[in-house]
Amino acid sequence: MSYKSDIEIAREASKKPIQEIGAKLDIPTDHLLPYGHDKAKVSQDFINSVQGNTDGKLILVTAINPTPAGEGKTTTTVGLGDGLNRIGKRAAICIREASLGPCFGMKGGAAGGGYAQVVPMEDMNLHFTGDFHAITSAHNLLSAMIDNHIYWGNELAIDERRVVWRRVLDMNDRALRDIVTSLGGVANGFPRQTGFDITVASEVMAILCLATDLEDLQRRLGDIIVAYTRDKQPITCRDIKADGAMTVLLKDAMQPNLVQTLENNPAFVHGGPFANIAHGCNSVIATRTALKLADYVVTEAGFGADLGAEKFMNIKCRKAGIAPSVVVVVATVRAMKMNGGVAKADLGAENVDAVKKGCPNLGRHIENVKQFGVPVVVAINHFVTDTEAEIQAVKDYVAEQGSEAILCQHWAKGSEGTEALATRVAEIADKGEGNFAPLYGDDLSLLEKVETIAKRIYRADEVLADQKIRNQLKEWEDAGYGNLPVCMAKTQYSFTTDPNRRGAPTGHSVPVREVRLSAGAGFVVVICGEIMTMPGLPRQPAAEAIHLNDAGQIEGLF
Amino acid sequence: MSYKSDIEIAREASKKPIQEIGAKLDIPTDHLLPYGHDKAKVSQDFINSVQGNTDGKLILVTAINPTPAGEGKTTTTVGLGDGLNRIGKRAAICIREASLGPCFGMKGGAAGGGYAQVVPMEDMNLHFTGDFHAITSAHNLLSAMIDNHIYWGNELAIDERRVVWRRVLDMNDRALRDIVTSLGGVANGFPRQTGFDITVASEVMAILCLATDLEDLQRRLGDIIVAYTRDKQPITCRDIKADGAMTVLLKDAMQPNLVQTLENNPAFVHGGPFANIAHGCNSVIATRTALKLADYVVTEAGFGADLGAEKFMNIKCRKAGIAPSVVVVVATVRAMKMNGGVAKADLGAENVDAVKKGCPNLGRHIENVKQFGVPVVVAINHFVTDTEAEIQAVKDYVAEQGSEAILCQHWAKGSEGTEALATRVAEIADKGEGNFAPLYGDDLSLLEKVETIAKRIYRADEVLADQKIRNQLKEWEDAGYGNLPVCMAKTQYSFTTDPNRRGAPTGHSVPVREVRLSAGAGFVVVICGEIMTMPGLPRQPAAEAIHLNDAGQIEGLF
Repeated sequence: MSYKSDIEIAREASKKPIQEIGAKLDIPTDHLLPYGHDKAKVSQDFINSVQGNTDGKLILVTAINPTPAGEGKTTTTVGLGDGLNRIGKRAAICIREASLGPCFGMKGGAAGGGYAQVVPMEDMNLHFTGDFHAITSAHNLLSAMIDNHIYWGNELAIDERRVVWRRVLDMNDRALRDIVTSLGGVANGFPRQTGFDITVASEVMAILCLATDLEDLQRRLGDIIVAYTRDKQPITCRDIKADGAMTVLLKDAMQPNLVQTLENNPAFVHGGPFANIAHGCNSVIATRTALKLADYVVTEAGFGADLGAEKFMNIKCRKAGIAPSVVVVVATVRAMKMNGGVAKADLGAENVDAVKKGCPNLGRHIENVKQFGVPVVVAINHFVTDTEAEIQAVKDYVAEQGSEAILCQHWAKGSEGTEALATRVAEIADKGEGNFAPLYGDDLSLLEKVETIAKRIYRADEVLADQKIRNQLKEWEDAGYGNLPVCMAKTQYSFTTDPNRRGAPTGHSVPVREVRLSAGAGFVVVICGEIMTMPGLPRQPAAEAIHLNDAGQIEGLF
Repeated sequence: MSYKSDIEIAREASKKPIQEIGAKLDIPTDHLLPYGHDKAKVSQDFINSVQGNTDGKLILVTAINPTPAGEGKTTTTVGLGDGLNRIGKRAAICIREASLGPCFGMKGGAAGGGYAQVVPMEDMNLHFTGDFHAITSAHNLLSAMIDNHIYWGNELAIDERRVVWRRVLDMNDRALRDIVTSLGGVANGFPRQTGFDITVASEVMAILCLATDLEDLQRRLGDIIVAYTRDKQPITCRDIKADGAMTVLLKDAMQPNLVQTLENNPAFVHGGPFANIAHGCNSVIATRTALKLADYVVTEAGFGADLGAEKFMNIKCRKAGIAPSVVVVVATVRAMKMNGGVAKADLGAENVDAVKKGCPNLGRHIENVKQFGVPVVVAINHFVTDTEAEIQAVKDYVAEQGSEAILCQHWAKGSEGTEALATRVAEIADKGEGNFAPLYGDDLSLLEKVETIAKRIYRADEVLADQKIRNQLKEWEDAGYGNLPVCMAKTQYSFTTDPNRRGAPTGHSVPVREVRLSAGAGFVVVICGEIMTMPGLPRQPAAEAIHLNDAGQIEGLF
């Protein structure tokens, strides 16, 4: 049996004009700002006009720790959205925009797969509606204005060694990680060491995704700390007077993008912050708008549930005043086998014991999510080599945990493959038995917040933080930032900080290497391990094979 | 009497849906890819479909050497287009897109002024349809792939000291002019000195503006020389295998943008290469498409006629196989006075003698344009302080040169103010008396081409080029690049290389400081004087005042 590739399926999509997709959510044509015939932004005026609507139910799709086998979180999000529409519900999905840089390295698209995709996938993996370019421009305008301020006399007395605001590009370019600027003489300013991050790592991205409206956006941009004086007083973006122009640059980007699934159901694709040094969810404004327009909104969070769902609940839900009615944890038989010790090359052979041995990773995530007071359903994302016995082993394990696992075949069959999941999820959401609360209160100390996550989610025994880090956290508390949530940056491959420890380990330590204050986004980043904020390209970048074919179609992007 | 500002007038515009504007040129709605309700790209398929149409008449608007008084070249281009429509002609205009960076420094918008503007002007001065962002991405992908190639073993044996391809940002950021990259250790590559230019200075911009279709685009991108080996053999973009992915990134950007004038007439706004190190005209694809759709196409070229018109004819027309039927040289009474020695502060007072004394600058441009075999009309762009006697002095002078000067009041009155000019221009174009030819043949040596321009356009006695430069030109001739035109980069304020020498000087020398090969764009850049390819921000950047007002409108951008 042979399968069509994602791109082949996407090209065969019978897309409807975006106005028809908007009409499904009662968005008038005038309030859809089109980008071509298959993409549109929803106008801020329209968003303002629906604030009185009742919210729909929010469904979060998260996953076990990612393995090289692939779990299909976005695919399941799309499939579940289509499934809900199939059973007659008014549902929309909310996912993140893709970063351009990694597409030229080795990462494929971020628009689902098989028969559960969002289209137009080429556009979504290239410039889309230009949001990330706007973020790049806004970020770098601030960078230019900081150096320009120093150049023209440095009235704010910025310590040139303490400029913490770098520059960004949406590109994998390791050469820009660590650079010296302003060489070449007096006319070019004061030389200093700095660097570029990839755009998705910009605090501006995190801010855009957490801001509730343009006013909130400008206030948060103004709050960004860009540098310190010699006596360590913070200098903000507002001091540099860049917040107004940055808001103007981001005005259009703040409006959520509407596209469609292969089954012509509405999909909001908006924002895409890093899932390590930021919170890794699509924008608050997209999710809140979708909730005003649809009865069910399916969304996802980056990485596994220990990072993605934790931040979704402790950061995004807390800040946006929203709560999930159900959480779907995606697992695959293959990933269970890898957690059970099987190598990737051997995944094709039936191995029920390995499945059973790997299940505790899934069990841990189920337990964790329940701590937030939210019902959990497991979606088993079906792969062709899965055997009945293996699938049954996962179902049995999940049932033992007091939850329920449902087999899904959306990759091969579209919404037909998620009817059972959609039906169950809608039932649970409608019952309204969830009682969501973040895992910690605002009033805990920053270190206590880190310890709460480390112990209750990662199941570590202790957090290791040296005196310098403790002092830094204390300083921020004294400066009024103690009420912020913490944004954990650690490997996504394990509950621990060691990417090779699969399963459900306990008794480990969580060493904090560095802490950073994102005063505009409104969280303290806690870095545990190596975090790369500017990726590089591989030996053979995907870009070498990307081209237009004779029919003018894009080849090699996925 | 008080006047409305450009932005006030633009906000009062009664814009029509872009589909109605397209309909004026018989562009079907399906072939207009909308960006919001007032901007669209014209599809490549539609462009292919009209290649059999007869070309309309091309009208170039150029100007005297710019003075601080302002000449209003874009304003006149827009006014003439509206005037032609007013007298019942099917006319379109073609102008350049604005660069984002300078808008945050001190430069105002680039969309005309008064009642002769193109709208939406805010969008045009911000992200517009994302073309410049696409160029930035394509340029920097190539940069990243070059360093990546060196990082992974440098199979092509690139000499790290001879990488000539820099990076770009659409930002005024002097700190990036001269930088050292790849610091921080082995994982970040090999440290080397390089820098950023502003996006409009990218060779990719020049290529996009000269390419006739996507295939030609990819071929030209492939031809870019990015580095040399130790024995000075060129390494191209094709060697780096970046040309395919860059073409994919530029696929949408290659399609011309359609917007409208305040009077709802079609305006193509596409591409915007630097007018010094590049040729300074809107894209060939936009101009050629407009010629297939309209009976009259009004376009402009950057700077004064000595640079802009010269390059338009010797580079763009030569490469695109097009020819202007009439050239309009824009002059103002105020600029004539400044050329006649009056200071900017004293321009308000009548001074007929100074007008007469300044007219030879205009006369020289008229003479120069006629050398290309094209009829010339002078447009006197009216300013409120102009007196009858001063205007008459310009008219008399131009008549003595065997041409005709026509007073235009489009800034204050829109198309009513250009009826006379439009009528005369259409008459001349219809007569078809022009007999266009570039000033020099492909077969002259590169130095002879420079000398031709220096002597016949700048009226210099000699070109000063040292042996190193002569050898370089010779090397390129030996390598097969001798047939390329030359792209002069000198000050726009004077016929000479000294920006302070107004009027119509003779007997000067043109020193060539540097030459650069733009093998993809297809010209040799000849730099005479200081050319800044990355601007800086002023002491008080315009960005500090740019913000959204309470009504959500953009303030301070102009």
